[in-house]
Amino acid sequence: MKKPVILVDTMGGDHGPSEIIKGCVDTAPSSPLTEFVLLGPEDILTAELNKLGNPGNISIQHASDVITMHDQPTWAVRNKPDSTIVVGSKMVKEGLAQALVTPGNTGAVTAAGLLIIGRIKGISRPGIMIAFPARKHNVYMLDVGANADCKPDNLVDFAIMASTLLKAVNNIENPSVGILSIGEEKGKGNELIKEAYELLEKTNLNFYGNVEGADVPKGTTNIVVCDGFTGNVALKLAESLAKEVFMELKDIANKSLLTRLGGLLLKPELRKLKHKMDAEERGGALLLGVNGICIICHGSSSSKAISSAIKFAVSTVEADVVNKIRDELKGKSFINA
Amino acid sequence: MKKPVILVDTMGGDHGPSEIIKGCVDTAPSSPLTEFVLLGPEDILTAELNKLGNPGNISIQHASDVITMHDQPTWAVRNKPDSTIVVGSKMVKEGLAQALVTPGNTGAVTAAGLLIIGRIKGISRPGIMIAFPARKHNVYMLDVGANADCKPDNLVDFAIMASTLLKAVNNIENPSVGILSIGEEKGKGNELIKEAYELLEKTNLNFYGNVEGADVPKGTTNIVVCDGFTGNVALKLAESLAKEVFMELKDIANKSLLTRLGGLLLKPELRKLKHKMDAEERGGALLLGVNGICIICHGSSSSKAISSAIKFAVSTVEADVVNKIRDELKGKSFINA
Repeated sequence: MKKPVILVDTMGGDHGPSEIIKGCVDTAPSSPLTEFVLLGPEDILTAELNKLGNPGNISIQHASDVITMHDQPTWAVRNKPDSTIVVGSKMVKEGLAQALVTPGNTGAVTAAGLLIIGRIKGISRPGIMIAFPARKHNVYMLDVGANADCKPDNLVDFAIMASTLLKAVNNIENPSVGILSIGEEKGKGNELIKEAYELLEKTNLNFYGNVEGADVPKGTTNIVVCDGFTGNVALKLAESLAKEVFMELKDIANKSLLTRLGGLLLKPELRKLKHKMDAEERGGALLLGVNGICIICHGSSSSKAISSAIKFAVSTVEADVVNKIRDELKGKSFINA
Repeated sequence: MKKPVILVDTMGGDHGPSEIIKGCVDTAPSSPLTEFVLLGPEDILTAELNKLGNPGNISIQHASDVITMHDQPTWAVRNKPDSTIVVGSKMVKEGLAQALVTPGNTGAVTAAGLLIIGRIKGISRPGIMIAFPARKHNVYMLDVGANADCKPDNLVDFAIMASTLLKAVNNIENPSVGILSIGEEKGKGNELIKEAYELLEKTNLNFYGNVEGADVPKGTTNIVVCDGFTGNVALKLAESLAKEVFMELKDIANKSLLTRLGGLLLKPELRKLKHKMDAEERGGALLLGVNGICIICHGSSSSKAISSAIKFAVSTVEADVVNKIRDELKGKSFINA
C-alpha cells in the first residue's frame, strides 16, 4: 500500500504559517506511516521547518500565492493557480494526496472541491459537516454552509455520507439521522424538509425523523441534516452564544473579591468546558462529497486546533471514507429497493 | 378613552390555571387603569381568584374548552369554539379586548390570529417576534415560527412591524434592522435573503444589511428579520444550548469540595445570568401583524413569566402598537417613494 499523503495549507490563517507548521510538527510523529506536505512559499516553510525540526515525515510543496478571506471564491479558484488551495486541490485530484487541511476561505475550498477535485459520482451536492459538542457525545451536523439553497435529495446525500463516515471512522454501527425542523411530527417544517422526510423514510438509514433546534445540544441523534443556510445560521449563533456566556462568566468572576475567589476555584473546570464548547478544538469542518478529504479550520486556529484537524484527516484517510461513500452509492446499500 | 382590556388565558399551561391566575393577580395592581379578564372554566377561576384575592380590576370570562399542545392548530380553531383561545380571539376581533396573553399552543394562536382576529390590512403574513437577550441589549428577532416558508415581502413586513413597535414601546428612535444571512456582504445568502435585501434597501427603515448568526448574541442590530423556519431552529438551538451550559456548570460545581465552594460564591450572580438568558423571563413571544396583540408564553411559564408577559401586553396596548403599524402602512412612511 502506498503511504497516505496529507497536505497542510500553511497560508490563510490569522496567525501566519508558523502556527500551522507547529501544529503539523507536533502531530506528525504520532502518524509515522503518513507523509505530511506543507503548502506555501518554499523559503518561509524551509526556514520555519528547520527551526522547529522535521520529525522526518514532513516535506514541502511550493505554492507562492494565497486566497484571502476577502477573495470571491469561484473567481479566486479560477484566477489564483499558484495559491495553496488550488495547488493542494490539484494534488488531491491527481491522486498525489488524499487529504487537504486548510485554515483558508471556506467558500474557496468548497469551490475548489467542486471545480478541481470534483464530486463523488452519485452525490448531488457536497456538504460541510461539523461536530457539535452535545452533552454526552458529538452531533455531526451538515450542511453548515456549502449550499445556501438545497433540494430534498441533497439532504439524503448528506445523510448517506455522514452515516458512512461515522460507521467507518467513529465505529458507530448504525448512526441515527435526524432532519432539522420546527416540530417533531412528520409534516412539520418547510417544503424542503417535508419532501426530504419522505425520501429519507425510504432509505435503509437509521432515520429518526424530525429533530428541533433544541435536539442538537441535547444530542438526540448522531447526525443532523439540514440545508446549508439554516445550518450555518444556527451554528454561528450557537458558537457566538457560547462565547458570550463565557464573557459573562468572566465579568461575574470580576465583580467582587468573593466572586473572584469563586472564579479561581472553578477555573480549571471552566477552562475544560470552554475547550469542549470551543469551535477551534473540534478538528475543523469536513467538506464531504468530493473525491478527497478537505478539512477546513477556523482562520484563527491555534497550532492545537490545526493538530486536531490533522489527526481527524489521518483517521478519515485511514478509514478510506471517500471510497466507502463511493461503495455505498454504487451498491446503494442505504437506498431501499 | 375606554379602559383597555387584556385577556389572560388560564388554560394550556403546564402548571394549571392557578399559576397563571397568580401571575395576573400579582401584576394587576400595577396597572389600575387596565381591566384584566381571565379566560377559562368559571367555577375554577372564581374559586382561585377568591382564594388569591381580586385586586379589583380582574374579571372572569367563561370558556369551557382548551386547545392542547397536541391539537392540530387549524382544526382546533375551527372545531373548539368554546376553547379559551377561540373565545379570546373573538373578543379581540369584536373590539371587546385589545390583547390576549396565553401559554397555549403557538400554532393555534397563530391560526386564530389569522382566521379570527384577521391580518392588519397591508401585512402579507403575521410573524412571531421574541426578545433575544444579547450582551448589551435585547435583539428583537422575527419570524421565529409562524411561517415555515416565507416570501421576500414577508421579511419587509416583519421589519416594518418590529421597527414601529420598538419606536412606540421601547422609545428607540431609529431601530436598526439586520437580515439574517450566512455572510455580511450583500449577495450572500439564499434566494429569499438576496431578494428581501433588495426590497429592504429601498425602504426608509434603518437597514443595516446582512447579519450572521453570531450577530444575534452580540447585539449588532436592534432587529433581526428571518424566515420562520430559520428563526425557530436558531432560537430553539440557542435556548437549549444555554440550558446545557448551565447544567454543565452545575456538574462542575459538584465535582469537588473546592468547586462546590466556588459554585456557592458565584451562585447569586450565576442565578442572575441564568434568569437573563432564560426564555421564560422574556415576557413571551408576540404575534405581530394581526388586528390585536397576542402574546404567547411558554407552556412551562411560571407566574413570574406570565407577569412579565402581561406587563409587555400592557405596554404594547398603551403604546397603541396595532394602530401605529396600520398608520405606517397607510402612510407607507417606511417605503420610499
